[in-house]
Amino acid sequence: MATCEELAKQKTDDDDDSDVIVPREDVHAFCMRCLQKVGAVTEHAEAMAELIVAADYRGFYSHGLNRLDFYMEDLRSGQVISKPEVNPAIVKETVATALVDGNNLMGPVVGTFAMDLAIRKAKQAGIGWVSVKGSNHFGIAGWYSMRAMEQELITALGTNPISVAAPADDGDSFVLDMATTVVALGKVEIKHTLQQPLPSGWSLDKDGRPTTDIEKAMTSVALYPLGGAEETSGYKGYGLAMMVEVFCSILSGATATPFGRMWGRDTEPGGANLGHCFVALDPQVFAPGFTDRLSELLNHCRNLPPAEGESEVLVPGDPERQHVKKCDALGGIPYEQNQIQWAHNLAEKNGLAPLVRLSG
Amino acid sequence: MATCEELAKQKTDDDDDSDVIVPREDVHAFCMRCLQKVGAVTEHAEAMAELIVAADYRGFYSHGLNRLDFYMEDLRSGQVISKPEVNPAIVKETVATALVDGNNLMGPVVGTFAMDLAIRKAKQAGIGWVSVKGSNHFGIAGWYSMRAMEQELITALGTNPISVAAPADDGDSFVLDMATTVVALGKVEIKHTLQQPLPSGWSLDKDGRPTTDIEKAMTSVALYPLGGAEETSGYKGYGLAMMVEVFCSILSGATATPFGRMWGRDTEPGGANLGHCFVALDPQVFAPGFTDRLSELLNHCRNLPPAEGESEVLVPGDPERQHVKKCDALGGIPYEQNQIQWAHNLAEKNGLAPLVRLSG
Repeated sequence: MATCEELAKQKTDDDDDSDVIVPREDVHAFCMRCLQKVGAVTEHAEAMAELIVAADYRGFYSHGLNRLDFYMEDLRSGQVISKPEVNPAIVKETVATALVDGNNLMGPVVGTFAMDLAIRKAKQAGIGWVSVKGSNHFGIAGWYSMRAMEQELITALGTNPISVAAPADDGDSFVLDMATTVVALGKVEIKHTLQQPLPSGWSLDKDGRPTTDIEKAMTSVALYPLGGAEETSGYKGYGLAMMVEVFCSILSGATATPFGRMWGRDTEPGGANLGHCFVALDPQVFAPGFTDRLSELLNHCRNLPPAEGESEVLVPGDPERQHVKKCDALGGIPYEQNQIQWAHNLAEKNGLAPLVRLSG
Repeated sequence: MATCEELAKQKTDDDDDSDVIVPREDVHAFCMRCLQKVGAVTEHAEAMAELIVAADYRGFYSHGLNRLDFYMEDLRSGQVISKPEVNPAIVKETVATALVDGNNLMGPVVGTFAMDLAIRKAKQAGIGWVSVKGSNHFGIAGWYSMRAMEQELITALGTNPISVAAPADDGDSFVLDMATTVVALGKVEIKHTLQQPLPSGWSLDKDGRPTTDIEKAMTSVALYPLGGAEETSGYKGYGLAMMVEVFCSILSGATATPFGRMWGRDTEPGGANLGHCFVALDPQVFAPGFTDRLSELLNHCRNLPPAEGESEVLVPGDPERQHVKKCDALGGIPYEQNQIQWAHNLAEKNGLAPLVRLSG
């Protein structure tokens, strides 16, 4: 693993010098201003702001600040609720399971409630499986799975993404957080903001033909499933996406994806009724020595000789760990100029103090 | 869905006319002869034979008869045990979880024990999560998940493959059963038996370079993870494979894949100590109407307009359902001439009655 200095240097080498470094507390404060402006109660805005900062800090720019205006629009239009007297509710439960109704609150408010419930059940019964309906977009899945991992539990969960986090020795860990499409839609949005073409194999146009045209991809919103075309087993990504659908919407009674609204596009009032699934598992009820065995596996993989042209072998969670170190070394989150300008426009439109003072 | 007659016709159109149709009871009897010849006790041989027939009948030729000599060699060499007095054992349990030691019995013997235990726990606590060590290769994962589905439960499990099965209305269902590599190794073995080159994007050679050479692929045993290269997110398939490793070997204390023996190649005595993970979930402890919602989703997908050049949209489980119908219509399982010849040689080598009487 590179040192902080190396990472800061790598930043200078790899990235655009014109990037703006914004301290995390400034990003957090900006999110709070924006969310409270459109009616979020403090506690709910805190949950969402924390999640947005965590996403950008871990390098998931597609799911951080990039999505703030969507969340604001949800609250402004009344499609999503933030009221002090409304909380998520347990509809039904056993010692190891629960069905939760999110009551159309913001995703991070519902997700935190459900994950914590799964954690409590795992501590009693060895496993907690919580199925959620009546929720909304909840940001990066890894944020929730890491919450359970901090308590030495293993977690798995999904909406359309799948995330699994498990603790290893000495603070090391396995953190998988992935969309079941070739890439997450947010990555296409980022390309759109930057006005860059797409790599081939990411998207189809509205007639189902492969495209690298960013405008066509934004119109179709049709990403390849993981695996791509049939010969390379794209049907497996399709199967995984449907598996996540079974656990998240079919199990909970939430609206299945094909029958739901298009986020940020369909703006009729009424809840999205999204579903999630949170699973917490206590490794102590299985074989002793879990973290040792996981560390052994992770380090075995990291020590493999890299493929031709590559410099290192990583495990799930390593790229994010590297990005966190880079941010620590830089003293904040690096944003491209376009993103800073975008945030500036958002602030102006809403009559709020900007994310950073622009020099120009 | 095509009728039986259409499927029988499709068979004539699509497949090699020289295929040999073998009734399932003949395949079963052949497996029993072979397994008992190398010391399997009747009950254990029955479990394995049932699994092999189910694999071929569902069209997973890579995991059926194709693997019979591997299972035989395991028993003959003493690497795998079959003794009437040895059974799988529960090491540790809670109301919703268990750790099982397979005591180095054949995979299907251990898998059936563990799946049935998960089913019993799901009926009590809503969920049953069973982690298994000390097991061996267990064939197609879908065979176990469908066992729970027959009792109206949802199941998920893995070794390196992932399988999830869930019941819908009127006997319909969702059955995902997939390797986390682009294709299962068994599919490469089939290409080797048929002496066909590989499609590009399946395999690397022993130096980590892409190859379509079947001999090089058989030597390297290095398949691409689902997603393929980095740009098309092959790291997601790698992450999924490692997730399965966490649930199956790290949790149970079984030997993790990179530290294990190479099946059918390393022949030193001693158990493989493979791990599995079986999860059964009772949809009744969540929102009512599970099967209705699943049927709605499955039929929605099936009724979508197919992509250019395709004739229909399928859901996970449909190709296997079609293969089962085809076998029913044909009165048995169609095998290619090479496979029949291979089974003939196996029988001859072991001094056993052949699978079918060859005409030539």
